Amino acid sequence: MDLYIDRDELGRGLARIQGVVERRSTHPVLAHVLLHAEGDRLRMTATDTEVAFIGDLVANITTGGEVAIDAASLFQVVRTLPESTVRIVLTAGHRLEISSGRAFFRLPGVAAEEYPPLPAFDPMGSIEVKELDLRGQVEQVAFAVSTDDARYGLNGAHLEAYDGGEGEVLRMVATDGHRLSASDIAFTGELTLTPRMLVPRKALAVIRKLLDGHESVTVEFGDAAIRLVRPGQTFWFRLLDGEFPDIYAVVPKEGRHKVLINRATLMDTLKRVHVLIQERPRPVRFAFTESEVSVQVHNVDRGEVNESLPAELEGEAITIGFNSKYLADVLNVLRGERVLLEMGHALGPCRVSDPDDPRAFFVIMPMRLD
Amino acid sequence: MDLYIDRDELGRGLARIQGVVERRSTHPVLAHVLLHAEGDRLRMTATDTEVAFIGDLVANITTGGEVAIDAASLFQVVRTLPESTVRIVLTAGHRLEISSGRAFFRLPGVAAEEYPPLPAFDPMGSIEVKELDLRGQVEQVAFAVSTDDARYGLNGAHLEAYDGGEGEVLRMVATDGHRLSASDIAFTGELTLTPRMLVPRKALAVIRKLLDGHESVTVEFGDAAIRLVRPGQTFWFRLLDGEFPDIYAVVPKEGRHKVLINRATLMDTLKRVHVLIQERPRPVRFAFTESEVSVQVHNVDRGEVNESLPAELEGEAITIGFNSKYLADVLNVLRGERVLLEMGHALGPCRVSDPDDPRAFFVIMPMRLD
Repeated sequence: MDLYIDRDELGRGLARIQGVVERRSTHPVLAHVLLHAEGDRLRMTATDTEVAFIGDLVANITTGGEVAIDAASLFQVVRTLPESTVRIVLTAGHRLEISSGRAFFRLPGVAAEEYPPLPAFDPMGSIEVKELDLRGQVEQVAFAVSTDDARYGLNGAHLEAYDGGEGEVLRMVATDGHRLSASDIAFTGELTLTPRMLVPRKALAVIRKLLDGHESVTVEFGDAAIRLVRPGQTFWFRLLDGEFPDIYAVVPKEGRHKVLINRATLMDTLKRVHVLIQERPRPVRFAFTESEVSVQVHNVDRGEVNESLPAELEGEAITIGFNSKYLADVLNVLRGERVLLEMGHALGPCRVSDPDDPRAFFVIMPMRLD
Repeated sequence: MDLYIDRDELGRGLARIQGVVERRSTHPVLAHVLLHAEGDRLRMTATDTEVAFIGDLVANITTGGEVAIDAASLFQVVRTLPESTVRIVLTAGHRLEISSGRAFFRLPGVAAEEYPPLPAFDPMGSIEVKELDLRGQVEQVAFAVSTDDARYGLNGAHLEAYDGGEGEVLRMVATDGHRLSASDIAFTGELTLTPRMLVPRKALAVIRKLLDGHESVTVEFGDAAIRLVRPGQTFWFRLLDGEFPDIYAVVPKEGRHKVLINRATLMDTLKRVHVLIQERPRPVRFAFTESEVSVQVHNVDRGEVNESLPAELEGEAITIGFNSKYLADVLNVLRGERVLLEMGHALGPCRVSDPDDPRAFFVIMPMRLD
């Protein structure tokens, strides 16, 4: 391997894979990135065997070749290089020489043969979605995925087909038992879903980081795996083998108490509430009346917050306790000016949505007030 | 207590004391700030009994009073307030009510009588120095203070009078046994130094944070304590009772090998060196020849850096090993274009300075090369 490559192109490529490689594995080669130079492309492959990323970078290649290099080291090295042109040469003993201006590094590598091969992928169908749609969907849903490893079927975000009225949409839904997120996006092509379409947390995190563009991305459905393809980049991940519960039985369609609140105003109030709620969750009292909501939290050690903000209530007055961090998570991924809260009774689920955008909804279970 | 105060004025005042209050003390009241409202001033007092800060803020006071409030909570609350005008009212049971626009907080407080009184201070002499000079002096010296609590006499920065040629200057010097920093500043007034003038680390950190202006500050010398006074603010600290060693016996006056290097170029090189040096210190090989220095580090696990940069050497060629982080710390607090290194032999101390500014010098002990 002997090639020249642009430092910033190489740096961006390495930034993308930092969330894919696995530093704490018992298999140290998984902390490496496989470099493969051929033709006019430097291909980077990173995997932890559950997710994998392949990215091609433009390079001026004199001699091809391949080697695996510690991904974090290489990234740090590239970020300190002084000149925009970088020369990379593979020498005996799998050592990689990196030079740029007066800087010269020699990094120890591992033979490409020791890098785990990627499993075969047999696409059974594929769709096209807008990158920003998919990224927005993941942002709206990922925070509700359970982090409790004992609840395996809740450790991912579930993909479903849903008839949104104007044809089928792709729904992503997640719940940790205390709250739920669901978000729909449009697609073109053929959706090939099996009953177990659980996207693991790590794949969700990588998708959020990778999809930074305004183009569309191809989503391919394989056997218990999914592949995202865009020009020069492929992201593969294995689906979880858990069974996602039927959540629609507990999702309220609408409630007897409907409240409209300005989203930014409520977010500001919650910021103040969170000053006094630090470690363990604590119910925040929301008292909804015809034209306002009074928000109150009382913490014997740290003090009390009490404020009222304008609200429009349809239905009778109601007082309900929420984990305010759950509510803040939802407000944070909505974009509209107002937020709609729909409640049946003080101990029942609360449905949260943007009244002007039906493509996502959220459910928060209340907390019992003292 | 019933007063109105500007939110940003209050926030700046509370920011200043966050480094003074002590959160981990067995005496919880030391995590509090004492608020005292009287006349047209809200006075804030914070102390851990080794250092103390008193700051006056302009306020519109209807009723005076005093109370101690958790300093971190109050600061967090103030930062979330929506309006620039803040009302503060002390109510029964030492509870402080804070309101601003629709926001309302009630924080639990402690009676002012439970707050530790500040010790008497009897100034025996005082000088005036420029704030930026003193702050710069602390920045140049603080990093060399020993963090090894077993070496009590090195746990602070030592103040000395030194004849700089054009009259007496105030020198601050610190060492951890591996490196040394000394920095001189001008003053007017009467210097009243005792042999034990050891400024503790925490006081150095607070001084760096407090002195943000371009005015001068009064330094008062008391009995084993020092007070810094500027309009509306007083910072007091106790000196350490340790004996600072006589360091001049080991400080080289000049060396047989003198090297001039561009400071920014050398800093860039060290940034790359540090990519491969992470946990434990490791000697970096500096080979100085007539017109260049070759910098090299080899780490079996992580790889190798090797680069040459222009240098002007007076004297014979020399190869020496340094802890490059010590060198980087020094380069970081110099301001000149060039840096001068003076060495006697490969295992002797190296004197580092700005060739165009004699007001500070540094000593770094070399490391043995393998």
